Amino acid sequence: MAITITDSFWQRYTDLIRNEMIPYQWDVLHDNLDIFIDKERDDPGIPSEKSHAIDNLKIAAGQKEGSHYGWLFQDSDVYKWLESAANSYALKQDDKLLDMMDEVVALIEDAQEDDGYLSTYYQIEAPELRFRRLFESHELYCAGHLIEAAVAHYKATGSERLIKVSEKFVECIKNHFGPEEGKINGADGHQEIEWALIKLYEVTGKEEYVDLSKWFLEIRGQDPDFYSKQLLENKEKGIDDRSIPHINLKYHQAHQPIHEQEEAVGHAVRLVYMAAAMAEVAAIHKDDKMFQSAKRLWDNIIKKRFYITGGIGSTVHGEAFTFDYDLPNDSMYCETCASIGLLFFARAMLKNEVDVEYAEVMERTLYNTIISGMALDGKHFFYTNPLEVNPEASQKDPGKSHVKPTRPSWFGCACCPPNLARTLTSLNKYVTSVDEEAIYVHLLMDFEGEIESNNQTVSLTQTVDLSDRGKVELSVKGVTEPVKIYIRLPEWGDMFYFENNSSVKDGYAEFIINEDKTLSIEFEMPVLMWQAHPLVRQNKGKVALQRGPYVYCLVEEDNGPHLHLLTLTEKPVAEEMSDSVLGDFFALKGKAKKIKSDDSWKNVLYQQAEKEPFEEVSLTFIPYHLWANRSVGEMMVWIDKGEE
Amino acid sequence: MAITITDSFWQRYTDLIRNEMIPYQWDVLHDNLDIFIDKERDDPGIPSEKSHAIDNLKIAAGQKEGSHYGWLFQDSDVYKWLESAANSYALKQDDKLLDMMDEVVALIEDAQEDDGYLSTYYQIEAPELRFRRLFESHELYCAGHLIEAAVAHYKATGSERLIKVSEKFVECIKNHFGPEEGKINGADGHQEIEWALIKLYEVTGKEEYVDLSKWFLEIRGQDPDFYSKQLLENKEKGIDDRSIPHINLKYHQAHQPIHEQEEAVGHAVRLVYMAAAMAEVAAIHKDDKMFQSAKRLWDNIIKKRFYITGGIGSTVHGEAFTFDYDLPNDSMYCETCASIGLLFFARAMLKNEVDVEYAEVMERTLYNTIISGMALDGKHFFYTNPLEVNPEASQKDPGKSHVKPTRPSWFGCACCPPNLARTLTSLNKYVTSVDEEAIYVHLLMDFEGEIESNNQTVSLTQTVDLSDRGKVELSVKGVTEPVKIYIRLPEWGDMFYFENNSSVKDGYAEFIINEDKTLSIEFEMPVLMWQAHPLVRQNKGKVALQRGPYVYCLVEEDNGPHLHLLTLTEKPVAEEMSDSVLGDFFALKGKAKKIKSDDSWKNVLYQQAEKEPFEEVSLTFIPYHLWANRSVGEMMVWIDKGEE
Repeated sequence: MAITITDSFWQRYTDLIRNEMIPYQWDVLHDNLDIFIDKERDDPGIPSEKSHAIDNLKIAAGQKEGSHYGWLFQDSDVYKWLESAANSYALKQDDKLLDMMDEVVALIEDAQEDDGYLSTYYQIEAPELRFRRLFESHELYCAGHLIEAAVAHYKATGSERLIKVSEKFVECIKNHFGPEEGKINGADGHQEIEWALIKLYEVTGKEEYVDLSKWFLEIRGQDPDFYSKQLLENKEKGIDDRSIPHINLKYHQAHQPIHEQEEAVGHAVRLVYMAAAMAEVAAIHKDDKMFQSAKRLWDNIIKKRFYITGGIGSTVHGEAFTFDYDLPNDSMYCETCASIGLLFFARAMLKNEVDVEYAEVMERTLYNTIISGMALDGKHFFYTNPLEVNPEASQKDPGKSHVKPTRPSWFGCACCPPNLARTLTSLNKYVTSVDEEAIYVHLLMDFEGEIESNNQTVSLTQTVDLSDRGKVELSVKGVTEPVKIYIRLPEWGDMFYFENNSSVKDGYAEFIINEDKTLSIEFEMPVLMWQAHPLVRQNKGKVALQRGPYVYCLVEEDNGPHLHLLTLTEKPVAEEMSDSVLGDFFALKGKAKKIKSDDSWKNVLYQQAEKEPFEEVSLTFIPYHLWANRSVGEMMVWIDKGEE
Repeated sequence: MAITITDSFWQRYTDLIRNEMIPYQWDVLHDNLDIFIDKERDDPGIPSEKSHAIDNLKIAAGQKEGSHYGWLFQDSDVYKWLESAANSYALKQDDKLLDMMDEVVALIEDAQEDDGYLSTYYQIEAPELRFRRLFESHELYCAGHLIEAAVAHYKATGSERLIKVSEKFVECIKNHFGPEEGKINGADGHQEIEWALIKLYEVTGKEEYVDLSKWFLEIRGQDPDFYSKQLLENKEKGIDDRSIPHINLKYHQAHQPIHEQEEAVGHAVRLVYMAAAMAEVAAIHKDDKMFQSAKRLWDNIIKKRFYITGGIGSTVHGEAFTFDYDLPNDSMYCETCASIGLLFFARAMLKNEVDVEYAEVMERTLYNTIISGMALDGKHFFYTNPLEVNPEASQKDPGKSHVKPTRPSWFGCACCPPNLARTLTSLNKYVTSVDEEAIYVHLLMDFEGEIESNNQTVSLTQTVDLSDRGKVELSVKGVTEPVKIYIRLPEWGDMFYFENNSSVKDGYAEFIINEDKTLSIEFEMPVLMWQAHPLVRQNKGKVALQRGPYVYCLVEEDNGPHLHLLTLTEKPVAEEMSDSVLGDFFALKGKAKKIKSDDSWKNVLYQQAEKEPFEEVSLTFIPYHLWANRSVGEMMVWIDKGEE
């Protein structure tokens, strides 16, 4: 499968990543920038004055004197940059980028210990505590990101240098972890190695990596006291005199074995990274128990803990899931990275079964929360992706200080921007899939490429038009044997029209062809008005609008302040717009009642209830991912809907 | 003015305090109880295993060996107990209680230093830092509570022993604080001394105490760096090597001088304690500038930052105010102590001008948030008084872990229960006031007493019936000269009927009498439906119900789960009820639509908007202060109101 995205909408993002993000992140990692300090940040405890990530590696390599600086997982910033750079290089070769990557690869090689170990904090500051504070150490998390970078680098350049580093590190891990007497019988506090080992398996074919992944998945939560026992042992050995903290096991999904976990709890990124690995292992091993365990988590998220924008994580406290139907719009977390993990999870589930729900979730999260994570200038990033923002609340309510009304330039914890970069430069992984039976097209974007199916290699070229009407054309060439092709019929389309010897199966149009052919699907793209399950108390009486894959929102700059005073009175209609900042897009135009907040109220806070005077106003909704690119103001996805 | 509350509603509370709270708190302070640990509490950093407050005093007095334990302000628990005990003793003399008080008084005398200083933490642990970490030390805060206890003890028993301790402590304070060269030019991080000094002035007549109060009020915020300069100086002198924290000046209302403060910001209790003292100083000095500064804070609170239940403080973060019209119902703080402070503030404002709004606020906060603070068993207490509770959210959303669905038995920081006790045992201060012109009756409860007005002492006996109709009868005896009496016409009454040679003035019925007479007012008590200002985004389309002084709420035990699914369809009516736990009270009975949440929804989280099926249901509202006395469940004050 070799797919290239040719869609101008998405090329704009990969261009931004190549031209803006990768050079910018390079400078950040090398501490070349003064602008690194984010003055908007609130928590003075988080390091943010500099990255020091390259320097950490240099110190570990003995190239430089000094101390470690930054998070325990600071190394992963370098690996994520490298993965993005490699993905970007695969899209467009560039000697300068190759040189930059070579520099980093050599540094990583140099920093690795002879026994394969690599984690600059523990190398520099606490070698005696290697693998001994797993609840927080992120050693295997960083190993995972190293492996993912290695795989991307190998695929982009053909160089096996980092694959060797990775395999040597995995050997070291295998020497320390496992069921055997004397080895560590537990997993990292942040899932990631489980997923990365699958990627390493995919390029090496070594099944031992899948086995190790499975072992890490299944050892988790077997002994809920594992993390604290490690700390106690350190204390007894006299190698760590810090007090033993209370460890919230649910945060780490280590409160019970994965096959017993019925609900998606704890840190959302950790959960979806884990679940994605579970789905991968299930697909490779055809392990139904593992698949069912992954599916339980999937269902709990998608049916009860999932935002209409594709976000997950209802609270900033632990960046975590809370409980069923708890989906606050203005205080949630909805971390960009969590939606990226959900994309991984959905794609991995598709390897187990083709169900249109996985594709729908991939699309929803990709076109809304994930790309909301980056400003149109490619230099500002959301960590948190709210569905409702009042800038005054962000400023004056400490409980909402994480809900930013503008994308900050960088973060002390720099996880989201490079995660975005590596994901948007590898979208080709998500568009199609293939199994023994058929080729599946899941995402409606322009692409071209070749897919091997049924002992033949067919060339595919898809062009998609989502303006007035929806139109998907898929040209299939090189057909010598009958081939079955499924193209997703998006749930936001209506009145589908395609040639009548094809049929609809589980949300996909099924085509069986014997010769080269251009398949075509046309459909209407109505404005959708979603309502949430009644137990989502935050959305009672409200609707969220969607057209095509885009969820829409109201922003203050188009609709004035106090968006909560609005009640939608009729279904809006789409209208093409062009904006100097936002570019060309379809807006939704509608009518609403707006309660008057000024003249009609005496200078009191409460009065005897009466019908509140209102005015008729016109509304403009813009695609959610475009908000916060022009000025600072309110934003709102869910709007009150008047009774008809 | 010597007023005794004879109202059975309130006597029930003073009986609970005498029979349950005071002996219980005595045991707590003496560490006689095993049940002190509150297992429901979340913050393991807060000391709660024991009180140690009496032991701290014994150690400071040299009666015992040991270290200080608890908060820097642990002493104030003892003083607040003593104040409650004294107030209770004044209501009903009791030798055992007198003995208990004597024991504590003797201990306090013994613990005081020769120079008048008294603060057990600094005496035991850090004498070199006395008055040198004022941002957090609470030394003057504790001094204030000592003074308030002394005044109450003196009034109840006639003993001047604690007044002497207090005056000696104030002398010590005057030796250390003031504008003179070499003295400390700043105020305590927690306002309280300012208010207490007024109480000390009231019993001693010494104007220097009012002057000192005014000085503390006006030095606040003059030098925003005052607190950090103290810490820097300690560091330079080598007497304190702790790192210098970031001090949030707004939290302490120390960000600017009080006369420049336009908004109520920061920790709500601190703000209202300060404002109450400002109003007292303004009244004594007839200081219009001070009055206007207090009035600005009052107006900002009451017109923009005030809950319908009389609560204040919109966020748990810093237990603080946030911004205008930000009144979340399910994540707010609304601390019992803050409403008590607001009661003080309102009463003090009445000394400056008689405006019915002050009386209305006193009543609203007293009959709703303040008494909500205590369970009907007298042994369980709310710190936070929410307007909407979902127990699952309290349990699973860490951002709402402070919003308890049941009253815990005690708190690591034991401020609210004793504050409640001292307040409810001194309600006689709030019922009436008198000035050169007239006698004013502000609160509609049964009382009797004597008031000096216009050179004569008149006896008053008020009886109030707030069942089917409202009826207030005030018998006035001992009239020899014409006397003017104002009785408040409550804003929740209607169709007032009283003798027609009297008139209405600014919300009060004005009576001028020349002879003994029983004044009478009758009125209707309709069910009120309040709506909030449109800019209170949390209450759009909602109403809150009130009858008499009581705000009402829905609870799950009467109305089933998922209260948010309800929409009120008609105005409820009052109905007398009797409950084995709640006693006799008036409920409100109404009709609502309840959206169906089960059958009609497929197993999805979102669907295309359609009219949601509902059922007609009957609702029972109970007075807010009665909630959470029967079982654990949802509660809600503001309910959606259908359009008529």
